[in-house]
Amino acid sequence: MKLSDLGEFGLIDRIRKLSQGKTSSPGIGIGDDAAALTISPSQAMLVTTDLLIEDIHFNLSYTDYYSLGWKSAAVNLSDIAAMGGLPRFCLTALGIPRGVSAEHILDFYRGFNRLLRLHKTELVGGDTCSSGRGLFISVTAIGEARPRRIIARSGALPGDAIFVTGTLGDSAAGLEMLRVRNSEFGVRNKKRKTVPSQAATGRLVERHLRPVPRVAQGLAIANSGCASAMIDVSDGLSSDLFHICEQSKAGAEIFADRIPLSVSLRRVSVGLSKSILEYALYGGEDYELLFTVPRRNLRKLRSLKMPITEIGTITTGRTMCMRDDAGKKRTLKPKGFDHFRS
Amino acid sequence: MKLSDLGEFGLIDRIRKLSQGKTSSPGIGIGDDAAALTISPSQAMLVTTDLLIEDIHFNLSYTDYYSLGWKSAAVNLSDIAAMGGLPRFCLTALGIPRGVSAEHILDFYRGFNRLLRLHKTELVGGDTCSSGRGLFISVTAIGEARPRRIIARSGALPGDAIFVTGTLGDSAAGLEMLRVRNSEFGVRNKKRKTVPSQAATGRLVERHLRPVPRVAQGLAIANSGCASAMIDVSDGLSSDLFHICEQSKAGAEIFADRIPLSVSLRRVSVGLSKSILEYALYGGEDYELLFTVPRRNLRKLRSLKMPITEIGTITTGRTMCMRDDAGKKRTLKPKGFDHFRS
Repeated sequence: MKLSDLGEFGLIDRIRKLSQGKTSSPGIGIGDDAAALTISPSQAMLVTTDLLIEDIHFNLSYTDYYSLGWKSAAVNLSDIAAMGGLPRFCLTALGIPRGVSAEHILDFYRGFNRLLRLHKTELVGGDTCSSGRGLFISVTAIGEARPRRIIARSGALPGDAIFVTGTLGDSAAGLEMLRVRNSEFGVRNKKRKTVPSQAATGRLVERHLRPVPRVAQGLAIANSGCASAMIDVSDGLSSDLFHICEQSKAGAEIFADRIPLSVSLRRVSVGLSKSILEYALYGGEDYELLFTVPRRNLRKLRSLKMPITEIGTITTGRTMCMRDDAGKKRTLKPKGFDHFRS
Repeated sequence: MKLSDLGEFGLIDRIRKLSQGKTSSPGIGIGDDAAALTISPSQAMLVTTDLLIEDIHFNLSYTDYYSLGWKSAAVNLSDIAAMGGLPRFCLTALGIPRGVSAEHILDFYRGFNRLLRLHKTELVGGDTCSSGRGLFISVTAIGEARPRRIIARSGALPGDAIFVTGTLGDSAAGLEMLRVRNSEFGVRNKKRKTVPSQAATGRLVERHLRPVPRVAQGLAIANSGCASAMIDVSDGLSSDLFHICEQSKAGAEIFADRIPLSVSLRRVSVGLSKSILEYALYGGEDYELLFTVPRRNLRKLRSLKMPITEIGTITTGRTMCMRDDAGKKRTLKPKGFDHFRS
């Protein structure tokens, strides 16, 4: 069987089935943002691992090593945040090609540790080796949580409101700007005689290169006991909402005009190749939190006074749809990033 | 600064210094086989991560995917064993190149889970993505231990006896056989008219492709409270003994004629390019346990009735030496595998 036929999520499903052996699962396992391992009735450990591969996840002509270290830590802390956990420890494994200097690698760790320190998380171990095939980064993060406060992807029920923290689409727009910087992007803007604000461009690029995991928000949501399901927006809103729907055996309806877009993204819109809504729906790498809340908990949620936006409702059935500004309904497809489909 | 000047262990040292930030270390951190994180006075968590890169750590023309999965799990469980811990959970991150079929990856997980089940350890999560640059495998293992029973590399004292489990050199000899199978090895043997026993060859190859982590032995040694320092033999006896010496600020004297060599290794010796002692000293990947024991604990150690061999003594000073069969002393260099030196 070809991997491209099975797809990334099909493969994960098969691996999950293979791995359900004779030992009993102590908690939430393969397929959520992090695995939850119950240590005692009052204590659980959250563990997650992510692989970042040169030219797949990052491009050394767009990113500096400090930012790469920062981001490698951020994407893992975001997985812990998406379960409502407190990140505590990280491990790194680096495959380093010839030609990379020690200073590059130390810069990577400066960025990595900077983000870790902001979240009182500690690098406790790892592995480094030479690689004949480009730079490979694997990060494992370990967090802690109270078992009853952990928020899985699978708890959403029809009627629950769908929320997202912050704004969406900035990271994908920032990546496009990095890609076409000094080339098409400049040319297109010259033709149109509109040059996007440097400050706005800078903010979008920053969101792509140094994303901020929503650790405090994830903890506040978990501690409030409000949310029924949560995930971080790494593949893109449509894909990550699909993960919640699939694991909760439900559907969703969202409203295009409610999707939170930043001022910076609106400001650069003329220079972009797609509509800004598309970056928000399919772009990914925003590392905001997408979560669902039973309506009886909405007052409690509002009392948290967080920058969140209600974008829709969980529905019965297994399909996702979006209403446009005119109220017209269209099907929403999980056009996320599947590593094995083209 | 070039990485080749700093070397793998110099780099690890610099990363360790960068990472000692404002958070206090809860246990043994970067530089041991696994990091030990104290959870409660009676409970510690051991975590370790290892990266396996195609054509650096394995070659798909010598190994099948089942064995590769087995070995990827084994090398990590061995790190937990080397601290005296009980492995409990694993996570995997795989970068998969085009052309690898779903069946290959599922075979990898069959081998991986087979070893895990033998040690009642569970795969709880991971990450899979496409790789334009060969197969990359990153495994994280999590174990548990009683904090006071954890055995670091740093506790050896002059006078302590040095022990090793099992036999050394088999894995490196097995690798050589895989490399030259059907080529030079066969030719050389034809010339000498001695063909090594197929059974012996098979056992050496098996030790290379499907090493067995010494989990039960590591636990028994830890629970007995006998040992002062422990490490697994992954880089090679000379290098791994050097790690113990360096971290314990001591030296060592070992005896060439006491190094345990298997019957299989002796049987194939004529076909090998180097003396069998060299495979044992510098080969690596045996995943036996190398540990030191204060002489007052020797009786207790013997009562464990494990297949172990005393090979020498920890000394004052910071050098390692080996006495040959005639009693002649020579310096022993840590000719281990340093990923950044050529």
